Amino acid sequence: MTTAEPFDAVDVIRAKRDRRELADAQIDWVIDAYTRGAVADEQMSALAMAILLNGMTHRETARWTTAMIASGERLDFSSLRTRSGARVPTADKHSTGGVGDKITLPLAPLVAVFGVAVPQLSGRGLGHTGGTLDKLESIPGWRASLTNEEMMSQLGEVGAVVCAAGAGLAPADKKLYALRDVTGTVEAIPLIASSIMSKKIAEGTGALVLDVKVGSGAFMKDEASARELAQTMVALGQDAGVHTVALLTGMSTPLGLTAGNAIEVEESLEVLAGGGPEDVVELTVRLAEEMLAGAGVHGADPAAALRDGRAMDVWRRMIAAQGGDPDAALPQAKESETVYAPADGVLVGLDALSVGVAAWRLGAGRARKEDAVQAGAGVRLHAKPGATVRAGEPLMTLLTDTPERFDRAREALEGAVTIAPEGSRPASRLILDRIA
Amino acid sequence: MTTAEPFDAVDVIRAKRDRRELADAQIDWVIDAYTRGAVADEQMSALAMAILLNGMTHRETARWTTAMIASGERLDFSSLRTRSGARVPTADKHSTGGVGDKITLPLAPLVAVFGVAVPQLSGRGLGHTGGTLDKLESIPGWRASLTNEEMMSQLGEVGAVVCAAGAGLAPADKKLYALRDVTGTVEAIPLIASSIMSKKIAEGTGALVLDVKVGSGAFMKDEASARELAQTMVALGQDAGVHTVALLTGMSTPLGLTAGNAIEVEESLEVLAGGGPEDVVELTVRLAEEMLAGAGVHGADPAAALRDGRAMDVWRRMIAAQGGDPDAALPQAKESETVYAPADGVLVGLDALSVGVAAWRLGAGRARKEDAVQAGAGVRLHAKPGATVRAGEPLMTLLTDTPERFDRAREALEGAVTIAPEGSRPASRLILDRIA
Repeated sequence: MTTAEPFDAVDVIRAKRDRRELADAQIDWVIDAYTRGAVADEQMSALAMAILLNGMTHRETARWTTAMIASGERLDFSSLRTRSGARVPTADKHSTGGVGDKITLPLAPLVAVFGVAVPQLSGRGLGHTGGTLDKLESIPGWRASLTNEEMMSQLGEVGAVVCAAGAGLAPADKKLYALRDVTGTVEAIPLIASSIMSKKIAEGTGALVLDVKVGSGAFMKDEASARELAQTMVALGQDAGVHTVALLTGMSTPLGLTAGNAIEVEESLEVLAGGGPEDVVELTVRLAEEMLAGAGVHGADPAAALRDGRAMDVWRRMIAAQGGDPDAALPQAKESETVYAPADGVLVGLDALSVGVAAWRLGAGRARKEDAVQAGAGVRLHAKPGATVRAGEPLMTLLTDTPERFDRAREALEGAVTIAPEGSRPASRLILDRIA
Repeated sequence: MTTAEPFDAVDVIRAKRDRRELADAQIDWVIDAYTRGAVADEQMSALAMAILLNGMTHRETARWTTAMIASGERLDFSSLRTRSGARVPTADKHSTGGVGDKITLPLAPLVAVFGVAVPQLSGRGLGHTGGTLDKLESIPGWRASLTNEEMMSQLGEVGAVVCAAGAGLAPADKKLYALRDVTGTVEAIPLIASSIMSKKIAEGTGALVLDVKVGSGAFMKDEASARELAQTMVALGQDAGVHTVALLTGMSTPLGLTAGNAIEVEESLEVLAGGGPEDVVELTVRLAEEMLAGAGVHGADPAAALRDGRAMDVWRRMIAAQGGDPDAALPQAKESETVYAPADGVLVGLDALSVGVAAWRLGAGRARKEDAVQAGAGVRLHAKPGATVRAGEPLMTLLTDTPERFDRAREALEGAVTIAPEGSRPASRLILDRIA
């Protein structure tokens, strides 16, 4: 380095390595210097490993988050007004990612029904958890990329927008996340929490509901880790003046009956039409209630807005505003294969991770960022845990355009199904806890 | 990566991160893949930090060392023969680095007097500890770089060679060392031990004596860490069939009365002429005895070979063989300043680190690999711990070609001198322990 830097990256790494607390100025500098390239990737990855193994205090994590926010632009929705000139409240939801998690699709328009603007900046899927943008891109014409002005205008006119986060938001996080992905340093709660919260705080939402998934198909496999992550994120949100609540929800089995892209849109449309699988409806309504309460809207009945078509109306306008045709037929996979129940009894286990990996291998997800996904690929479930099944009955349908993928998908599903004698009951619960 | 690799770097990093033992095949792969660029710097630095914080077992460290040796060439001295056709034994010494540590200079020719070949591959200094090659390069005409053939021929004809390690020896270590230096991952005993031992084993010496320094001027500040490092290295050497012994020696005060380049050569010449400071002579003779015993030579009297000029004869031939003029005047610094004793009493402390940093700042050492050193710069001591001093008496002379460096050198020396009432005795010892 030829320019004079106020700190030396090696001193900062050593401090965390030796379990010392980093000073605010060290954190501000290391994030800024990393963003502009004065701290090298190999230095940041050593620091990330030291953070993973030695932890960060709440103060350090909060400052790390603030520094990542400061690395880019912040959105400001304070100019959004109702016709009478009142400020429009904003609410957003973030899920830590699960299998069959299409909740954003019905949720965003549902919350908008009640006059709360929903600026839902989303990502693409990587690995076995699907991405909201990938699902929506199976709708012909729909586009994920909006300028800040387009987003603001759609929020004013439609009330809900689901789009890709612009490159301007927390660029330090984008760079750091890509680095952590290849250096075994993803699984650090302070880094996960600050990554999520820096984007959500920079996005400028007034209220935020976090759906922290727990179980085989989730990033957090055990409830204690999920709870720690939820508590860390809630505290970061509250520090930043965002009304933040977290739900811990089960992800040991997929949400709903579909895991893929177009098939998840299809299931979301059933929910928006007043039907759909019970668990998807329950979680959508519960998250809507939390978002509305966080935004200061009380006495709303989101379940009714699903049944009476109001949420579907906002959905149609939301999709159309981004170039999508809400009436277009969705893409279908060219090939399918059926997985049959191996025995009589009660289906007590249908492993989320296995189904997620199968859907991914069928083409619904990507192994690398630059890969494309198949809109029609995925897994359609015909039974959920709790159902009584008969040997030879269809349990799942595997969908893909590329039939050579069936073998590897079936491999992923080995051991995924547990059938118990009649009278047994599955253990999984949907909503485990609420952290505020 | 487009080529098929047998392992994924992230899996290897995660294993060590999660305190699992790495398999031999994982270690072999990660070192090989890093050397050829298939494992990126940011991945290796995360792994190095995980090793630093979670450790390695002896088996892992031994395999890591073997893998680094396998990354390059190995030298083989088995063709060295005496006139009667007997195989010539070889012995080498490695010091972990200290202030005023010029021991290699008299030691290599001294051991060669007794028919043991000394292939001393050395390094340059970085930071406050000087480098043997930097010291020797103050001799007009002397060159550090030899081909393997030149080295072998000099070993046969003169019996001793001190030269730069070629790029072919343990290239994985060279790459990894440079990475650790900028990522706060130097201070990991398994990595330090494997770095040193991979080079020494690849070098092909039959016997090895390790001088592991302890104290303020050493890399290891406390005896427990130094002992752990020594034990790890001795075990690695013995595993590889190298007769290895370690001495723990004190480095709380500089060795001898000089810290610099030309002034250390000058002091070495005094030792080779049968004089010189007591501590330098004592350590030189003790290390020579260990090297000779390791090489199977018993009953030798190295102290006599210093007194009677036999070691000096080999020195002159060794320097001349590498283009140096043993009779040339050594460079002298253009400027000098004196540091005076602040009080009457007994000098009980003269801090090695402070003197090392002062010499470095005067120009004897380099801050970056590409910097040049000043041949004449350094610190000359006029008293050592144990001496009775009077206020105003010269304690040290600071030497440099660039007088603007005096202020920063004096700053480094603040608090370096401790004078106690008459009758006091300094605590420092020279040889603390022997580990075999």
